[in-house]
Amino acid sequence: MNYRLLIYILRQVMRLLALCMLIPFVSSAILGEVEVFFSFAAMIVVLVGLSLLLGIVKTKKKSIYAREGFIVVALTWMMISFFSAVALFFTGHYGSFVDALFESVAGFTTTGSSVIRDLTAMPKSILLWRSFTQWLGGMGVLVFIVAVLPMTGGRMHHLMRAESPGPAPGKLVPRMKDTASILYFIYAGMTLAQMILLIVGGMPVFDSVLISLSTASTGGFGVSYPSIASYGNVYAQWVITVFMILFGTNFHVLFLLFRRKWKAALRNEEVLWYLGIFAVSSILIGCNIYSQYTSVGETVRIASFEAASILTTSGFSSADFTLWPQFSRGILIVLMFLGGCAGSTSGGIKISRIIIMVKICKKQIKKFLNSRAVTVVKMNGQTVEEETLGGISAYIIAYFLVLLISFLLLSAGGMSFEETVTASISSLNNIGPGLGSIGPMGNYADVPAFCKLILSLNMLIGRLEIFPMIVLMSPSVWRNR
Amino acid sequence: MNYRLLIYILRQVMRLLALCMLIPFVSSAILGEVEVFFSFAAMIVVLVGLSLLLGIVKTKKKSIYAREGFIVVALTWMMISFFSAVALFFTGHYGSFVDALFESVAGFTTTGSSVIRDLTAMPKSILLWRSFTQWLGGMGVLVFIVAVLPMTGGRMHHLMRAESPGPAPGKLVPRMKDTASILYFIYAGMTLAQMILLIVGGMPVFDSVLISLSTASTGGFGVSYPSIASYGNVYAQWVITVFMILFGTNFHVLFLLFRRKWKAALRNEEVLWYLGIFAVSSILIGCNIYSQYTSVGETVRIASFEAASILTTSGFSSADFTLWPQFSRGILIVLMFLGGCAGSTSGGIKISRIIIMVKICKKQIKKFLNSRAVTVVKMNGQTVEEETLGGISAYIIAYFLVLLISFLLLSAGGMSFEETVTASISSLNNIGPGLGSIGPMGNYADVPAFCKLILSLNMLIGRLEIFPMIVLMSPSVWRNR
Repeated sequence: MNYRLLIYILRQVMRLLALCMLIPFVSSAILGEVEVFFSFAAMIVVLVGLSLLLGIVKTKKKSIYAREGFIVVALTWMMISFFSAVALFFTGHYGSFVDALFESVAGFTTTGSSVIRDLTAMPKSILLWRSFTQWLGGMGVLVFIVAVLPMTGGRMHHLMRAESPGPAPGKLVPRMKDTASILYFIYAGMTLAQMILLIVGGMPVFDSVLISLSTASTGGFGVSYPSIASYGNVYAQWVITVFMILFGTNFHVLFLLFRRKWKAALRNEEVLWYLGIFAVSSILIGCNIYSQYTSVGETVRIASFEAASILTTSGFSSADFTLWPQFSRGILIVLMFLGGCAGSTSGGIKISRIIIMVKICKKQIKKFLNSRAVTVVKMNGQTVEEETLGGISAYIIAYFLVLLISFLLLSAGGMSFEETVTASISSLNNIGPGLGSIGPMGNYADVPAFCKLILSLNMLIGRLEIFPMIVLMSPSVWRNR
Repeated sequence: MNYRLLIYILRQVMRLLALCMLIPFVSSAILGEVEVFFSFAAMIVVLVGLSLLLGIVKTKKKSIYAREGFIVVALTWMMISFFSAVALFFTGHYGSFVDALFESVAGFTTTGSSVIRDLTAMPKSILLWRSFTQWLGGMGVLVFIVAVLPMTGGRMHHLMRAESPGPAPGKLVPRMKDTASILYFIYAGMTLAQMILLIVGGMPVFDSVLISLSTASTGGFGVSYPSIASYGNVYAQWVITVFMILFGTNFHVLFLLFRRKWKAALRNEEVLWYLGIFAVSSILIGCNIYSQYTSVGETVRIASFEAASILTTSGFSSADFTLWPQFSRGILIVLMFLGGCAGSTSGGIKISRIIIMVKICKKQIKKFLNSRAVTVVKMNGQTVEEETLGGISAYIIAYFLVLLISFLLLSAGGMSFEETVTASISSLNNIGPGLGSIGPMGNYADVPAFCKLILSLNMLIGRLEIFPMIVLMSPSVWRNR
């Protein structure tokens, strides 16, 4: 293990975090939210101080290997969640440190589940910070550092690989650094576009900014409860639906669209399935809930909003789906597992993995029937390497085991069956709401502290796609230097 | 596809089924249960007639390849369930054909879930037949045929492979036919031993026979509700607990014990984990439910009984675990997934698969950290072939997808969330009870007909470990002759 390199990168992360904390620092100064101002000011000082202090450790070799990649990613995410939680806790607006930690992890991992009972009573700077943490987490903290830091000779693809969602992160352009920059450029551009469209539609500027940050990251923190319905703004709901679907799309495809390569973009298997699943589930839900709403227009709007919100793992709510018939709730729960596209900001298993999972089964059946048959799995016309297939199989096995273990641990915490099941699924897939008291109209305030810790761990495991967190917890990785 | 061979084997299955139906035929004659007598008599005539009629089709080539293996197994199980359902339906004791079909599938697949509200009102011959179908299904219908039929030159391992539970059915002795005979010999011997022990303990003879048939197959059909507690017989409960654990053990290991190869038997990784999981979960449940019972003895008995019942996928009930705290219910739900050992009569994923799943994840992490590392998965000191690993990965992926799809379909049927979730898990793992109205004190009588059909399909998919049913439903298999 190259400890010096580890410290070097964590120092950069601290600096970036300090830089980002200038946002609530400045906003609280302007709004006169004293407790927020002092808390974040102190944390900025701590972060800068720590970063300077650790500067004594000099680094020579800056190559990042797979092992360091996993460890750095896992440590980074735990560290930023911790520091942000300390800042939040010392504002005095959170009942306990566990609450602040839960909220912080829910932010960075773009889960968007909250422990706050009354959002309107919260200082605006805290709401702004919450939403911003999602935005930072959505595209990746280390992806950002790769984009801006002059790291010469570093094998940065190991960092990108460990942090980006999806089975095999594609390079948009030959250099990783440029890929990272382009990703952030598209991300920021689209976020800005959404803000403008919302403001034009009459949503207050502050709310537009926060909602756009939450949409871009498919996070789902709101400004009030229920997060979206409260505006009663039909136009805004449609804008958010469209942008949720956009941000859940593979950014590789968005890049192709951006470069006007329409054909290549529209031939992408994953995106076609993604849009197909969105359309079919919206229609099924629409038909199923029609009787509960007043018009076809309202039904279509609510069905497609909720389908997009859960499929992309945003978790915004425009309606109380706990009151829907079991079939619609069943569809939402299946969508929770699917998630958006690989290489997007969404959570879940990812559509491309699901497609490849089906193809792995087909391949296996062919092999069963004819053991000498040469079988390959193809995606977008190209053969998927055996190594990637092995990785996906192991991922889904680990995913299943983590889900079982987290369900078991949450069961010990005293939540109801419905809450235990949906909280495990919702946290591991970085969605937000579940069913029961943690539904779209509820929050996680009453969840026992022990469960909040398990859920926080689940969110981190889910956002980092399991393996970095397992590697971090493996003693053998630390033993063999 | 060798259609002639298919018909040949299905004829043998019909004959076997007709032979087995002599049991309710004779018992109903003795007990004077006229409607059962006529119904089964008619069905025996139909089966013998059909079998003779199909005798016109002559078979030359008797080699069974993988394709025929899968198809034959899937067709056999659908066929026996159908014929048994017809016989049950015409007794007039089932409300609808769907009910009779559900009960029949629940029997053969050793699920043991019932649609009967009042067991005491049922003719005894029907109860006997229900329990016997489990016994036949437990070790396998085709395994029996392999054991008794003089099939020369046949590659019967494809039949065994497709019907036996577990990733890789081991041969006990070089010849498959002898292996099948030994399996049935151990199976019958242990069943008989249990019957005697129960009778000695004061349980009525009829009940002892039925309960033993249900235990041996890890099926779980009872003679009254709740299936076991109603006897109030502490001794009997312990006997059943011990036998459930025995029948959930790999028969390969039982064979070793039988031959007094103690060391080899006790070094089996799967069995050690199996016993460990049973012990740990019994203790955890015991500590958790202690306050609900009067003494330590009662708590230990009930906790270990239910843990064994669910882990081995028997589904017998001695207590109403729907009233237990969520932690204990959570443990039971996790146990539902695990199941017993490979090569036993139990359902579920099987302990050996779970062990290998964990090892696949470890292997993947090693590969991530060092792509050139040579990594193998070992089980009982021997390297597991890549082909087997691929098969297990594909199985668990298919399992996960089937679970999601069945959950979605059941959601459309109008059951509650808790019932929908636990019914999917319970049926796919061939357990029996779920939570809610389908709990240990309830039954499946009020489940909508559509859901009963989905659950029946689920039970068949689960018992045959998914792939035979998928192969049967693949048009491509039927197209390419």
